[in-house]
Amino acid sequence: MEVSKMQTENINQIDVKRLQEVMGQFRHSPELGKYQFRAKNKWVSGAHSHSVIKDFQAGGQEDTSREDAHILIADEPTSLLGGDLGANATETLLHALGACLNASFIYHAANQGVEVEQLEIELEGDLDLNGFLGIDENVPSNFQQIRVKFKVKADASEEKIQELCEYAQKRSPVFNSISKPVPITVTLETTKMAHAHG
Amino acid sequence: MEVSKMQTENINQIDVKRLQEVMGQFRHSPELGKYQFRAKNKWVSGAHSHSVIKDFQAGGQEDTSREDAHILIADEPTSLLGGDLGANATETLLHALGACLNASFIYHAANQGVEVEQLEIELEGDLDLNGFLGIDENVPSNFQQIRVKFKVKADASEEKIQELCEYAQKRSPVFNSISKPVPITVTLETTKMAHAHG
Repeated sequence: MEVSKMQTENINQIDVKRLQEVMGQFRHSPELGKYQFRAKNKWVSGAHSHSVIKDFQAGGQEDTSREDAHILIADEPTSLLGGDLGANATETLLHALGACLNASFIYHAANQGVEVEQLEIELEGDLDLNGFLGIDENVPSNFQQIRVKFKVKADASEEKIQELCEYAQKRSPVFNSISKPVPITVTLETTKMAHAHG
Repeated sequence: MEVSKMQTENINQIDVKRLQEVMGQFRHSPELGKYQFRAKNKWVSGAHSHSVIKDFQAGGQEDTSREDAHILIADEPTSLLGGDLGANATETLLHALGACLNASFIYHAANQGVEVEQLEIELEGDLDLNGFLGIDENVPSNFQQIRVKFKVKADASEEKIQELCEYAQKRSPVFNSISKPVPITVTLETTKMAHAHG
C-alpha cells in the first residue's frame, strides 16, 4: 500500500517526489534553504490597514515567480472602535499559527506516506487589553496563553497521528516564532507634514 | 490647536472620546479588558487552508456583534509546492505584526492628540527551511530575525514620533507575542478513516 501511494507521487495533493528532491537539494547545499519573507503594511484609516505580499528571497536569490500580490486586510471590530473590514491583527496571528501547523502536518504526513482526509485546527488566545491600552503596567501586552485543538482524520494509527501532530509543532515556523522569543529590530523614517494651518 | 482637535473627537478616524470612555471603563473594572480571540482553520488541499474568524469574548461575555465572518486564506507559492492561492503562514505572521504595530501607533497617537497622515510598515523575516524540513536539527524552525521599518508622516516632532513608535512596540499584542515566548497548549482529537481499500 505504501509503495503504490509513493508511485502516485501526490499525497495530500503534495508532490512528494518534488518535496524529496527539494529536501535533497537543501541537504546537499544548505544555503538554498535560507529564505526571506516580506510584507508591506500601509495604514488606510482608523484601525484599517492592509499588507501587500509578493516577492521573497529563496537561497539568496529573489524569487519573483508570483505574478500577483496577495493583499491582506486588517481592521478592528466595531466594539473596539474599528470598521470591521477584516480580522484584527491578533486574530490574524491565530490564523497564521493554524495555517502553519496545518501545512506542517500535511507536508510531513505526505513525506511519510500518510494520507489525510480531514484536518481542522481550532485556536483561541487570551489577551488582556489593559496591557495594550497601557492601563496597568503589570499586565503583559502579549497573548497570555494560546490553546490549539487538532481534529484529524487520517489513514494512520492514533499513535502515528499523535507523532505527526507533535512533529508538526516541532517544525512549524509560526508555532516556534510564537512559543519562543524572536528578535525584532525596528527602524524609523519620518517625513515632515505640510501644515495646512500654517 | 490640540484643544480644537479634541473637540472634533475623531483623530486618525479613531473616536477618541469613545476610546477614552473604554479606557475609563477598563480602569474601573479591569475584568472588562479580558478578551479571547479565535480562529478556525481548515485544510482544503495541499498547502491550501483557510480560517474562519467571527466571534470573540469580551470581558467574559460573548461578543457576537460581527454579522459576517472574515475568511483568511493561506497557501504556499508554487516554488514551495503550493498553489499560491494566498500568502503563506509566515508572510501572514509578518502582516499580523505590521497591522498590530500600525493600529497600536494610530490608537495611541489619536489618544495623545497626534494626527497621522501616512504610516507604512515594511517587514522582512529570515527563515531557514532546513529547520522546517527537519534536515538539520541545529537549525531553528522559527524566524531567526525580523526587521521592521516604520515610515511615518505625522503632525508632531521627530522626538514625539520616535516616542510613539517605541510605545506602539511596547503595547502591541502581536509584537510582544513574537518577541516574547507565549505558552501554547495543543490537544488532539482523531477520527477513524473508512478504508475504501479495506
